[in-house]
Amino acid sequence: MPTFRVWAPERRQGALDLGDQRLPMRRHDGGWWTIDAEAVPGADYAYRLDGGPPRPDPRSPWQPAGVHGPSRLLDHGMFVWSDRDWRPPPLASGVLYELHIGTFTVAGTFDAAIDKLAHLADLGITHVELMPVQEFSGARGWGYDGVDLYAPHHAYGGPDGLKRLVDAAHGCGLAVVLDVVYNHLGPTGNYLGEFGPYFTDRYGSPWGPAVNFDGPGSDEVRRFVCDNALMWLRDYHLDALRIDAVHALIDLSAVHILEQLAEEVEQLGRVLGRRLTLIAESDLNDPRLVRPRRLGGYGIDAQWSDDVHHALHALLTGERDGYYADFGSIADVATALRDAYVYAGRYSAFRGRRHGRAPTGLPGDAFVAFLQNHDQIGNRARGERSTHLMSPRRAMIGAALVLTAPFVPLLFQGEEWGASTPFQYFTGHEDAELGERVRIGRREEFARFDWSPDDVPDPQDEATFLRSKLDWNETAQPGHRELLDWHRALIALRRQTSELLDGRREAVCTRYDEAAQWLVVERGSMAIAVNFADRRQAVPLTGAALEVVLSSAAGASLDAHGITLGPESAAILRLR
Amino acid sequence: MPTFRVWAPERRQGALDLGDQRLPMRRHDGGWWTIDAEAVPGADYAYRLDGGPPRPDPRSPWQPAGVHGPSRLLDHGMFVWSDRDWRPPPLASGVLYELHIGTFTVAGTFDAAIDKLAHLADLGITHVELMPVQEFSGARGWGYDGVDLYAPHHAYGGPDGLKRLVDAAHGCGLAVVLDVVYNHLGPTGNYLGEFGPYFTDRYGSPWGPAVNFDGPGSDEVRRFVCDNALMWLRDYHLDALRIDAVHALIDLSAVHILEQLAEEVEQLGRVLGRRLTLIAESDLNDPRLVRPRRLGGYGIDAQWSDDVHHALHALLTGERDGYYADFGSIADVATALRDAYVYAGRYSAFRGRRHGRAPTGLPGDAFVAFLQNHDQIGNRARGERSTHLMSPRRAMIGAALVLTAPFVPLLFQGEEWGASTPFQYFTGHEDAELGERVRIGRREEFARFDWSPDDVPDPQDEATFLRSKLDWNETAQPGHRELLDWHRALIALRRQTSELLDGRREAVCTRYDEAAQWLVVERGSMAIAVNFADRRQAVPLTGAALEVVLSSAAGASLDAHGITLGPESAAILRLR
Repeated sequence: MPTFRVWAPERRQGALDLGDQRLPMRRHDGGWWTIDAEAVPGADYAYRLDGGPPRPDPRSPWQPAGVHGPSRLLDHGMFVWSDRDWRPPPLASGVLYELHIGTFTVAGTFDAAIDKLAHLADLGITHVELMPVQEFSGARGWGYDGVDLYAPHHAYGGPDGLKRLVDAAHGCGLAVVLDVVYNHLGPTGNYLGEFGPYFTDRYGSPWGPAVNFDGPGSDEVRRFVCDNALMWLRDYHLDALRIDAVHALIDLSAVHILEQLAEEVEQLGRVLGRRLTLIAESDLNDPRLVRPRRLGGYGIDAQWSDDVHHALHALLTGERDGYYADFGSIADVATALRDAYVYAGRYSAFRGRRHGRAPTGLPGDAFVAFLQNHDQIGNRARGERSTHLMSPRRAMIGAALVLTAPFVPLLFQGEEWGASTPFQYFTGHEDAELGERVRIGRREEFARFDWSPDDVPDPQDEATFLRSKLDWNETAQPGHRELLDWHRALIALRRQTSELLDGRREAVCTRYDEAAQWLVVERGSMAIAVNFADRRQAVPLTGAALEVVLSSAAGASLDAHGITLGPESAAILRLR
Repeated sequence: MPTFRVWAPERRQGALDLGDQRLPMRRHDGGWWTIDAEAVPGADYAYRLDGGPPRPDPRSPWQPAGVHGPSRLLDHGMFVWSDRDWRPPPLASGVLYELHIGTFTVAGTFDAAIDKLAHLADLGITHVELMPVQEFSGARGWGYDGVDLYAPHHAYGGPDGLKRLVDAAHGCGLAVVLDVVYNHLGPTGNYLGEFGPYFTDRYGSPWGPAVNFDGPGSDEVRRFVCDNALMWLRDYHLDALRIDAVHALIDLSAVHILEQLAEEVEQLGRVLGRRLTLIAESDLNDPRLVRPRRLGGYGIDAQWSDDVHHALHALLTGERDGYYADFGSIADVATALRDAYVYAGRYSAFRGRRHGRAPTGLPGDAFVAFLQNHDQIGNRARGERSTHLMSPRRAMIGAALVLTAPFVPLLFQGEEWGASTPFQYFTGHEDAELGERVRIGRREEFARFDWSPDDVPDPQDEATFLRSKLDWNETAQPGHRELLDWHRALIALRRQTSELLDGRREAVCTRYDEAAQWLVVERGSMAIAVNFADRRQAVPLTGAALEVVLSSAAGASLDAHGITLGPESAAILRLR
């Protein structure tokens, strides 16, 4: 007989709705309510507090009817896994691939994604990273507005769908990373505040009330978050979590929630006998996040490096709007490719203050680097990818620099073939008023950048969602196919070349000429030579190179002084 | 010709009022305005922004006419110091004495305090700690409402008065610590916001807008704070700063303002050739504050330990209101006397969450411990001291435990003789409306604890201030004189006993019997034995003691099993 448990410390009455029954719950110390009730997996239930309306379980494992509907009982022990001997590849030698279940395939489900795993394995990917799948309002959305943080989205295929995907990925040798959002909850279906002090008004977040990590009652809020992370790793066999926007997790207590989380995840890994990994998105350029705990860090394994993206994007596209104003030189790219942080104490005009600190002692694999990701694409007015903003030749340069960097590279779905489809901001809010607010908000946001309202896609329009789905036919088409081959070759080279997997940032040596527009990145006996100029030119090397291993364009030629590269091209060389 | 400089980055016009002249200032990069003008030390000046009213210099060195008046030009080079060979005693072997200039003497000035330095030196004090002296509104107040953070209060004697006090203290072998408040500014005379983005509404503080340490423009705000600290240490020859309520300094940037401050102070110390010290008040129980920077800490030298106070106060007085509810057992006192943090991850009912973390590896001298301080006395409705709340015998126990602890002990003015005068909350707000708000606020605060309004002293009433002044005649009076002798004897013993100055907390061994009400603290070959019970009893020792070195009451007797102590008494023993 399962025990139903819910935390509601300030409530005087708790009841369980189960089928036609309404069962009174018993209060325990610490504000927990429980009841043992006859129920089998698949039974629907809800909680009522102080005689109020039925609400989903804050830890609901499944919301088959969406965020307002009942929760459904689940027994994780019933799924038959086939990944018994699975051991994930280390992140340090990995290549990540970020995808969004709803737009990755026509069907937009976990099961449909399984069909594409062979493509990813063939490309050389090691880790598939899923954008958030936690139940959010509506049938489509990016997922950052999740409210039932323990429940895989019903429209994607629910709990069993996710398990089938993870199991199949493991079967293909692919690890799976899940994006988790602990800095806020979505605006619709968020009933947590009725249950307990999950939120605080002592701090704000850009997306609504901040989560209460350090005020009264925060012990259980922290458990809610940590238990959630442990659940995904244990019950769904996930290999890693990508924690969204950790700069918005405000916790001034003596043990930061991320440190607690990292410690608990490490312990679970020991119990499960497999390495579990935490990756954080952070805009703080603060090494503390990824430093070992014995040195005062939080012990997160790796963090996304926006600076690498911004430096590459600004240089390759020439864009200087918004935060790109802080970037644009080859010098910034050279710094980014060694230090991950371009801003390590330097003044940032965009931020109006000095930003970051030196990542002293941190290995390259403490950083995830990318030429694009869902945010950098989708937060543009029209969701343009890199390949829509730069020449194919420059896109090949970008790929070469990311995939030979001392960091863990990440691709965004379709990047490998330069998908022509955009990745736009789409929502499916059931609440019409909220939908309208989001539509207007989006227009106003881009009006600041002189976008006409008519040119900003309507997030609520289903066409915006459908337009963002990948067109897999492109992978075989001219232009796309060559870029796909380039990515495949770069990834293969990376994975078989120890110099490229060497995480010692201090061993990275860069030389460049800002005026002549070339850059050389030396990594042990390998070098990446790039000509950003639109004319053929000689790029000097410090010694004679042995051979050109890969080249983004024909016509690269070696001589005693260096390499001559065609316009806007990159070559990877063996030096000795 | 001096250069006048002020930072006002968002202003379009800056002017200097100097005598009868109004001189236009020139704007420079970064939002600084300057002008070179003929002026001699002693000249009064003010700034006008965008044609507005005259305002004091945010970095005014002297406000002879109060917070709204003009600033006065000062040349720090003109004071003749006599402390050329001064080297401060190390904090680790120090005994601190906190005092409030306005109530320490009848005259309430820096100069009057000089007359009492001999008393402090005779008592064995090594460091005199001044409650804040920065210019605040009115002629009397605790000082935490300072607004001209670079200016010693005019009513205390201004810049030269403070220098004379510091110089005289050094002449008596006493170091001087100054309390600095960087978490908020006072409500009256705070014109900083007119000059620049000194404040932020992204976070709150209990006392008004939070200081902007990590938002746009924060580089200069941080300079304002760091330059202030450096100024006190350099120009006023102060030996240490006590940083008020650092838990209210919210800074999520990669380099916390306290870390920056600690690093700059350390550098200044190297330049000056004398050791400079930073002490922080913190209620976070977070070892990061006092850990070395190489281990991810901020590198502050020591922090106040409220837990030691709360544990002792709750046990000795029996009070259990408010935060004392979390304390009260002998076990808590035993934990406090070894770990400084009683709450090192344990659940705090008062806070409604787990609190703190283990101070692993931190030495005892990273903590300042006290039986009372200005806050613990003055934030009570009637400002009662420990000696008003416990028997003289228990007060002697408290003194023995604080002055033999592995921490840096601190006394509050008059504690050494059990002053009969209270230390009440007093203000002298010139703004009548604000004064009334403070008066009502104070009454309402204590109404929660069932205090009748008539029993709460009126903070604005000058009598409240006068009542809080020490009565030095008491030092020679019976009862008081004995307590003074007890403190003097304990301090002398501490300073000449290496075991008591041993900062290794792990060498502290405690044994106690909660029911029988005794406690033994062993520190190497020394032991402190305490009988909290109001009956004579035998307290067992692990070995035979050699001798009773000090005893708070007659009649302590050793035998082979331990020591027999009179009711509510303490003895300090040599064990071997």
